[in-house]
Amino acid sequence: MQDGPLQHLIKTLSGLPGLGNRSARRIALHMLAHKNQTMLPLADLLKRTAEEIRTCSVCGNLDMHDPCAICQDVKRSESQICVVAQISDLWAIERTSAYKGRYHVLGGLLSALDGIGPDQLNLSSLIRRATNPDVSEIILALSATVDGQSTAHMIADHINRPGLEVTHLAHGVPVGGELDYLDDGTITTALRSRKASA
Amino acid sequence: MQDGPLQHLIKTLSGLPGLGNRSARRIALHMLAHKNQTMLPLADLLKRTAEEIRTCSVCGNLDMHDPCAICQDVKRSESQICVVAQISDLWAIERTSAYKGRYHVLGGLLSALDGIGPDQLNLSSLIRRATNPDVSEIILALSATVDGQSTAHMIADHINRPGLEVTHLAHGVPVGGELDYLDDGTITTALRSRKASA
Repeated sequence: MQDGPLQHLIKTLSGLPGLGNRSARRIALHMLAHKNQTMLPLADLLKRTAEEIRTCSVCGNLDMHDPCAICQDVKRSESQICVVAQISDLWAIERTSAYKGRYHVLGGLLSALDGIGPDQLNLSSLIRRATNPDVSEIILALSATVDGQSTAHMIADHINRPGLEVTHLAHGVPVGGELDYLDDGTITTALRSRKASA
Repeated sequence: MQDGPLQHLIKTLSGLPGLGNRSARRIALHMLAHKNQTMLPLADLLKRTAEEIRTCSVCGNLDMHDPCAICQDVKRSESQICVVAQISDLWAIERTSAYKGRYHVLGGLLSALDGIGPDQLNLSSLIRRATNPDVSEIILALSATVDGQSTAHMIADHINRPGLEVTHLAHGVPVGGELDYLDDGTITTALRSRKASA
């Protein structure tokens, strides 16, 4: 294989999450076969996105504006703040259209293993936002993992004040999930949190 | 999710081979978190690669020069031409360092299903190259599939001339492969082509 920009391109692509050498080579060849439809537009998009997208100073979301469109949307309730670990979690909740409040992106979870402590998270501004008397509920939409739950506990400890409700997502059987394939913990929780059928 | 370059970027990424919506979102977020280390260099690399890499007019390989480095390499034998379907196959053979001749990239295989006939392949220049009396062997390194084998037959029919040997890759047990997991056809071929142990 000759040396040059193509090899550098493949090396850079193979460093992206989820891609290895083989998939990077496949993508590079596909793009070279579609230079004008894919490769050059993608180069422009990468440049434009890097220049135009910034982090919202209020909630940590990514947007072209600061504060972001969600923080500026007067139709969204200011009384609820949904705390998520990553932007991708925010997007996942937005795709449901089931939530009409604001967000707060932590940028990660506490993790002793990865050496992520409270100082590495976007936490102090959440604590400040939670002191606003207009905020009545903090929804902790964090993973049901050890890291997620220890992060949730720490946040709940820090933002505790009268009149502020701290909630978390319900645990239970995923919609469309088969009982036979679920772990014992989920089934136990789902049983204990059972609801009267409508 | 807000509209803008980020959404266009994710849509473009999700159109690349092997990537879907979820992996495209993951890659876009990763790049935004590493703008200067990954995103802007990748934009430059895409642009440079699109501008500098061209198709070799002799063999169909991709390179910065035309003819490509392999076609210009005087240390490589001119008497052998290895015919491959795709550039990725050429790269796979080059990685072995086991071949020191020239190549010819067809750009695909005959496929009735995909409507690919002889005219869609880089075939006429192969037929012309094969008439060169310096060429003594054409190695058909094509997949052992129906499409690969019908392409091999068609090529063999077209380049037939005295003094030109047409060969194909050996079939057999892959190195490191377990008999128990191999299909009957491969085992049958490997048995029939058995060799005296050294």
